[in-house]
Amino acid sequence: MDKNELVNELARRRGFLWPAFELYGGAAGFYDYGPLGAPLKRRIEDIWRQYFVISEGFAEIEAPTIGVEGIYQASGHLSGFSDPLTSCKECKEIYRADHLIKHIIEVPDALSNEEIYKCIQDNEIGCPECGGELSEVYEFNLMFKTMIGPGNKMAGYLRPETAQGMFINFPRLLRYFRDSLPFAAVQIGKSFRNEISPRQGVIRLREFTQAEAEIFIDPRDKSHPRFAEIADIKMKFYSQAAQEKGEEEEMTFGEAAQRGVVAHQALAYYVARTYQFLLAVGVAADKLRFRQHKSDEMAHYAADCWDAEVFLDRLGWIEIVGVADRTDYDLVAHAQASRVNLSVFVHYDQPVKRKKLVIKPDYKALGPRFKARAKAVGEALKALSPEELEASRGDKIYLTIEGERIEIDSSLVSFESVEEEIRGEEVVPHVIEPSFGIDRIIYTVLDHSFYQDDVEGEMRSVLRFNPAVAPIEVAVLPLMDRKELSDPARAIVQELRSSGMRVDYDASGSIGRRYRRNDEIGTPFDITVDYEIREHGTVTIRDRDSMKQIKVSRRQIADKLSALLAGRIKFEDAGEPVALGKKE
Amino acid sequence: MDKNELVNELARRRGFLWPAFELYGGAAGFYDYGPLGAPLKRRIEDIWRQYFVISEGFAEIEAPTIGVEGIYQASGHLSGFSDPLTSCKECKEIYRADHLIKHIIEVPDALSNEEIYKCIQDNEIGCPECGGELSEVYEFNLMFKTMIGPGNKMAGYLRPETAQGMFINFPRLLRYFRDSLPFAAVQIGKSFRNEISPRQGVIRLREFTQAEAEIFIDPRDKSHPRFAEIADIKMKFYSQAAQEKGEEEEMTFGEAAQRGVVAHQALAYYVARTYQFLLAVGVAADKLRFRQHKSDEMAHYAADCWDAEVFLDRLGWIEIVGVADRTDYDLVAHAQASRVNLSVFVHYDQPVKRKKLVIKPDYKALGPRFKARAKAVGEALKALSPEELEASRGDKIYLTIEGERIEIDSSLVSFESVEEEIRGEEVVPHVIEPSFGIDRIIYTVLDHSFYQDDVEGEMRSVLRFNPAVAPIEVAVLPLMDRKELSDPARAIVQELRSSGMRVDYDASGSIGRRYRRNDEIGTPFDITVDYEIREHGTVTIRDRDSMKQIKVSRRQIADKLSALLAGRIKFEDAGEPVALGKKE
Repeated sequence: MDKNELVNELARRRGFLWPAFELYGGAAGFYDYGPLGAPLKRRIEDIWRQYFVISEGFAEIEAPTIGVEGIYQASGHLSGFSDPLTSCKECKEIYRADHLIKHIIEVPDALSNEEIYKCIQDNEIGCPECGGELSEVYEFNLMFKTMIGPGNKMAGYLRPETAQGMFINFPRLLRYFRDSLPFAAVQIGKSFRNEISPRQGVIRLREFTQAEAEIFIDPRDKSHPRFAEIADIKMKFYSQAAQEKGEEEEMTFGEAAQRGVVAHQALAYYVARTYQFLLAVGVAADKLRFRQHKSDEMAHYAADCWDAEVFLDRLGWIEIVGVADRTDYDLVAHAQASRVNLSVFVHYDQPVKRKKLVIKPDYKALGPRFKARAKAVGEALKALSPEELEASRGDKIYLTIEGERIEIDSSLVSFESVEEEIRGEEVVPHVIEPSFGIDRIIYTVLDHSFYQDDVEGEMRSVLRFNPAVAPIEVAVLPLMDRKELSDPARAIVQELRSSGMRVDYDASGSIGRRYRRNDEIGTPFDITVDYEIREHGTVTIRDRDSMKQIKVSRRQIADKLSALLAGRIKFEDAGEPVALGKKE
Repeated sequence: MDKNELVNELARRRGFLWPAFELYGGAAGFYDYGPLGAPLKRRIEDIWRQYFVISEGFAEIEAPTIGVEGIYQASGHLSGFSDPLTSCKECKEIYRADHLIKHIIEVPDALSNEEIYKCIQDNEIGCPECGGELSEVYEFNLMFKTMIGPGNKMAGYLRPETAQGMFINFPRLLRYFRDSLPFAAVQIGKSFRNEISPRQGVIRLREFTQAEAEIFIDPRDKSHPRFAEIADIKMKFYSQAAQEKGEEEEMTFGEAAQRGVVAHQALAYYVARTYQFLLAVGVAADKLRFRQHKSDEMAHYAADCWDAEVFLDRLGWIEIVGVADRTDYDLVAHAQASRVNLSVFVHYDQPVKRKKLVIKPDYKALGPRFKARAKAVGEALKALSPEELEASRGDKIYLTIEGERIEIDSSLVSFESVEEEIRGEEVVPHVIEPSFGIDRIIYTVLDHSFYQDDVEGEMRSVLRFNPAVAPIEVAVLPLMDRKELSDPARAIVQELRSSGMRVDYDASGSIGRRYRRNDEIGTPFDITVDYEIREHGTVTIRDRDSMKQIKVSRRQIADKLSALLAGRIKFEDAGEPVALGKKE
């Protein structure tokens, strides 16, 4: 088995990841997080929350996963979020049409459906299964569709991304943040893409978890107030230029922003936070890089975009996070579709004074001419825009009053230039979007944490989890399954669980086997309860990675473990070392 | 405005709960959790996780929300999870048919669709909107349906409950728990019901959040090892008998289990944990009761069922949790549909010895008679079941070998009684299911936490949140928006956020107004930063409920707040009291 197979086998056997619905035949693209996978996921999400909600003061929201049509009309998903398909006329099998011509056309994305079909015909490409003739190429929308309520009146779509939930709540979010920029909202939740033929375990799922932040900033100032905190961090940047050279370039974020390698401070700041987060959850630094989108792969509206990519033995470099400056694209699209103003009134530090032409109707002249309508005419004159005013100086002015077109000689009005105070302006914010694929991150953490070593001639498999993400933090193991040991062991379990630790109790099999079992699922610490607890009131704590053991008094277990798990003390300093007498 | 309106208005205005998709016309039955609602929800879910995952050692899993047809065929949702509808032939409006005859038939649930339609016709009931004639009554399935993959080959359903995800993973869960009972799995996640006309805010949603535990126990022993921990807790039980009297009966859980008011210890234990959880998140004890299902409302397979009900001013008593003993119903249904064995081999403490009749073929006699087939005949004889053997003693024995029926005289075999050791037996576990409606719990916490009082002649609105659920734990308020105060205030914000606290910074408006703003969203503590921080290095901390203030040194803020939030110290003991000079 190669490493990928070892990790997948472990993930399945021990209850991290299970292909879903096996009892009923399964379905590609759906996975269960099992008893170890779900807590790993929760804990990674909680660390994300500390980085991108609590620490930044961002607002977490939770919008429904089902959305109405209007949202996806505006976002473009209804018309554009699709793949080109072709079906075999004989066996009815369905294929990604662009995949069938990949060996002929390098970048088939650029072709229209007609062009792809022509290419299939010209090259006499048949059904890969049965050789039958292929149908014309048609679009298949990747959103799952359903109907809301009875009577097939209202279509609903399972969201293809969480982002839209933040965009369509922009007016409310703006109010929540007391009408001033910058502010940000995030969501952690399920998204859905009806992939044609999902593969590669949790790398490409039909139902998956995203964590996305939409950070609304003033487009006129893309600096970041906390940039200094990350300016000195060094990282390898795989910029557009570096990709041409084929080599990453190491520099500080300060340099990257200053040299324009990353478009601006705000984007660089969130790339840095993403980098810190990924390292904190256990992505290996030497298998992580940030790659800038090339100009031809970047969305036309985006100002800059960086993907966090990780190296996986079998799959090579794959994207797990994207951090983009999406400019005002999304808000403009929703403002147009919903006809709701999605701009922010930004106050100037100092009001600006500006000259402005205003009209002064001469009511003494208008009165006799328009009688009862003189007031309406006066109001209409005052309502003319500066441009219309400029155009009409010294000429005729045309108005429409109650449907009737009226001509007024400009001699009946006077013009005046007044100074007006401008306190600010309407701005459509730009959006920085860090978008995380949680399932891919979890798989990466499994892959990068896995190693095997040789212990006394036997192979040991270990998940070297950071204690902050470990699904089981402590295993409590009575040396033998006898009441005088299992009773105090169970009491320790309950005490630690009450203080919020994730604790497993295991009394079955040899102690060595139980250590292995816990090493394999990444449990950082094992507590062994033997007769010392009766004789000296002590237990041993074993460290997963070094396999060293220390002796700790019963009363101190909770405090010591909580300090060990938080990394506040070193293992060696937490208790008296134990000479390894017991067989590992 | 009545209390319900006040709470709803507050929830909407301040960003707890928003009707979803307002930008695109909205859709009934969908809500957003806003910047304050989402953290309230997260924190309540986290407390649930402490009670029903960490403390009990249960396994949290995460199955997809989309499921395949087989699951819901087996569970009965495909055929039975529906409402009877009728449509107006004129205006096409659609109605719950049973609701239209509620004033005529008290319990229309018992009627067939034909009977409901007959009742509509007999009573000449027309369309409530236009008076038009109503159509025949038809079933509308409440599951949202979609199609998985292209080509309309595979139907998918959005899960109507999280429970099925645990049932269909039973074999894997059993393996995870090393093949022994009891064990349990839980899920916290979205469920979906395509309600005909959802109303009442988040009380009846089309997309909602459940937290469900499926606790698999040995049906022969429904005691609970930790029952003693909850036996002395007193609670009001609204049992079947109590409901007939119309009065709840107060007793301890010990008494309730002993007297059989609750069916058994295991069920009583989880009712007690549910009770503790609900009080911990802020449900008011005097507006909470546990009501036993009456025999006619309980599912036919259930052994006992208790609902946690809360009192809401406008809606009366509503269910927020159900705790049921569902017996082996779900596992039996899935075992039958999937043809997978869903039982557990339970080892006896001591093996049981049992006499058993076995057959001994007489090969010397069989050989000449059956020649080459003698061995096959012998094997077939040995494979006969004990019942078949009993029936054939002293008679003819019939076998089928390679499709041919063979008659054997029993004189060609001998019988022997042997003693066999039985080590255990196959048992289909029973399931205790606590099922929580998270959205309803959140609304209840808002409702039960809300109060108004009079402060110096002005009305003050307060959400008296337990600090453990408050979406904002601390507000940091510089007395004035000046750099010499806002700089140290922001530094405090960052320090507290780094230690994981949910902190808001607010510099806009008078200090009194900012206190009100934070009282209204339930912020337990406000830190006011005034010139004392420059002169004496101190700030004040204000307690939401008492409005008292204490003086605390800058260096101690994080420690004091963390102790206050965890309830480790009393407010009065946390610092030097401040005479209330500032206007509240």
